[in-house]
Amino acid sequence: MTTTTTPVTVLGLGAMGSAIAKTFVDRGHRTTVWNRTASRSAPLVDAGAAAAATAAEAAAASPLVVVCLLDGTAVDEVLAAVEGAVAGKVLVNLTSGSPARARANERWARDRGADYLDGKIMGDPPYVGTPNVMFAFSGSRSAFEAHGSTLRQLGTVAYHGEDPGSAAVEFMAQVAVGYEFLIGFLHTLRLVQAEGVDVAEFAERVAGSLAGYPPLLTSFGKAVKSGEYGPDLGSLDVQAALMDDMISHRESLGVESVRMREVKELMDRRIADGHGDQGFSSLFELLAR
Amino acid sequence: MTTTTTPVTVLGLGAMGSAIAKTFVDRGHRTTVWNRTASRSAPLVDAGAAAAATAAEAAAASPLVVVCLLDGTAVDEVLAAVEGAVAGKVLVNLTSGSPARARANERWARDRGADYLDGKIMGDPPYVGTPNVMFAFSGSRSAFEAHGSTLRQLGTVAYHGEDPGSAAVEFMAQVAVGYEFLIGFLHTLRLVQAEGVDVAEFAERVAGSLAGYPPLLTSFGKAVKSGEYGPDLGSLDVQAALMDDMISHRESLGVESVRMREVKELMDRRIADGHGDQGFSSLFELLAR
Ligand SMILES: NC(=O)c1ccc[n+]([C@@H]2O[C@H](COP(=O)([O-])OP(=O)(O)OC[C@H]3O[C@@H](n4cnc5c(N)ncnc54)[C@H](OP(=O)(O)O)[C@@H]3O)[C@@H](O)[C@H]2O)c1
Ligand SMILES: NC(=O)c1ccc[n+]([C@@H]2O[C@H](COP(=O)([O-])OP(=O)(O)OC[C@H]3O[C@@H](n4cnc5c(N)ncnc54)[C@H](OP(=O)(O)O)[C@@H]3O)[C@@H](O)[C@H]2O)c1
Repeated sequence: MTTTTTPVTVLGLGAMGSAIAKTFVDRGHRTTVWNRTASRSAPLVDAGAAAAATAAEAAAASPLVVVCLLDGTAVDEVLAAVEGAVAGKVLVNLTSGSPARARANERWARDRGADYLDGKIMGDPPYVGTPNVMFAFSGSRSAFEAHGSTLRQLGTVAYHGEDPGSAAVEFMAQVAVGYEFLIGFLHTLRLVQAEGVDVAEFAERVAGSLAGYPPLLTSFGKAVKSGEYGPDLGSLDVQAALMDDMISHRESLGVESVRMREVKELMDRRIADGHGDQGFSSLFELLAR
Repeated sequence: MTTTTTPVTVLGLGAMGSAIAKTFVDRGHRTTVWNRTASRSAPLVDAGAAAAATAAEAAAASPLVVVCLLDGTAVDEVLAAVEGAVAGKVLVNLTSGSPARARANERWARDRGADYLDGKIMGDPPYVGTPNVMFAFSGSRSAFEAHGSTLRQLGTVAYHGEDPGSAAVEFMAQVAVGYEFLIGFLHTLRLVQAEGVDVAEFAERVAGSLAGYPPLLTSFGKAVKSGEYGPDLGSLDVQAALMDDMISHRESLGVESVRMREVKELMDRRIADGHGDQGFSSLFELLAR
């Protein structure tokens, strides 16, 4: 243990909190831990952490207090318990949740004399401590500057600005993009399975075709930002001609087609509006604001 | 022009048919073209193709007849016009459409003494003639073996088996996966835009995060095939804890959340069934078969 590393407290020792605490211990931080179910601290104590009897005692032990619990309700409960121990400290909440909760937590911390950083984690616990886990932060800039080097030990770190909700916006949006992709993919696995195709081989082929997507997403982003829509993926006139076949094929196999019906309807409206020469990205213009 | 290349006819000179005909001309095939609107053949004739006055004359000119039209209705019309000219020929239909249409086209061709190959194109016309356009084929194996080297000039070629509908299944499934991803992405661009985030920068970040998806899709495919679901993307217990925040955040901004509500409902049902320790891929088990 060196004398230049910041002492850290970790509240919450689930899969993610334990991986975080373990990383701090391994990198030589004096680490104090607490978990509602006390027995979960044993492996951390074996590794060199100190276990506190209460959350308030744990929070009092370090200038940097990291919270990683199941959800916002758990955070509310634990914050209430540490209320008297956070003045003058930096509170870093790594629990997943909404921008609204992050903003409320920031107000709570400010009212009690603490600096607040909200953090959102994208990645798996076993990869904490490697660049393969992304941490999005927002909130107190001075707290981020003071503790950035400590937080960077956990993975790849980005700072999204002083609005404490910004990291949660990024997280919610990234998770949604992933879930949209993956639930659509699972529905389509039902389609290929119903047609007798090997689902694992199909998944491999989709994985292989992903190489074309990064430039496509970049061009979509530029088109949406500028409002200038080229014929990406072909013109809507040509793409729309396929949609009835696509939908009837899915329905004939009992595969759901919520999104495909929506896409067809948006394409038809866009064509009716005189934009059949534009591409898929132009459907953005019809989405509710 | 060498004497070893197969003479080819191309019926349909839209963006895609023209790119195909041009590739054949450039690679030294004696190429005969026809298009409903005759004027579109001019650039091909300038490049060295022969324009036929009718579709039937064009079909009669070559042993290999490639059809690339807007949709199945157009194919039906043009096939009716070439009915007397296809006996003994190989008919390759590259028009997008359903497996049912491909199977019907194959019967039509067989009844008229022609060999049928169905082909489906994934890629953009400017890239025809490069490996960046994928051609999925199915149907007559002997036709594919006889003309595979000619067809490979157009791009990266895969043969999906003798069921003439197989290429269309692959195509419909690949297009659906792409559309699911992209329409979900566009909805989420509305979300980040409503929160004041630069949409082009967000798109760049998503593009960057795609590197993690190929191994994830592969693992999903294996999980679905085997029915053994690990905690991919974390356990459902942990993932589900976020869904209320995700949905209320979207709804507070007027962003649609059809898929997010579906995902929440599927997660809740899977947890209620005692599978909260499994991951996202296990939602497949609840999808209609
Ligand atoms: N696991 C992942 O792959 C992953 C990835 C990215 C982000 N995250 C986020 O990281 C956070 C933690 O996830 P995890 O995987 O560590 O979850 P977990 O393994 O289920 O652990 C949950 C933790 O929350 C505590 N907790 C729950 N309710 C509580 C309450 N009312 N009061 C006090 N403590 C309470 C639990 O304490 P007990 O031990 O006493 O139950 C436990 O320490 C979540 O927000 C999750 O979304 C996880
Ligand atoms: N463009 C792409 O990016 C792309 C990518 C993958 C797959 N594809 C597929 O390739 C096929 C052709 O697309 P494209 O981009 O070439 O479309 P396009 O530029 O709109 O051309 C459509 C073609 O179909 C002909 N046509 C339409 N209705 C007809 C009818 N009733 N009878 C005779 N001919 C008719 C048109 O003839 P006229 O000139 O007389 O109108 C024209 O030759 C489609 O199935 C499309 O899904 C295209």
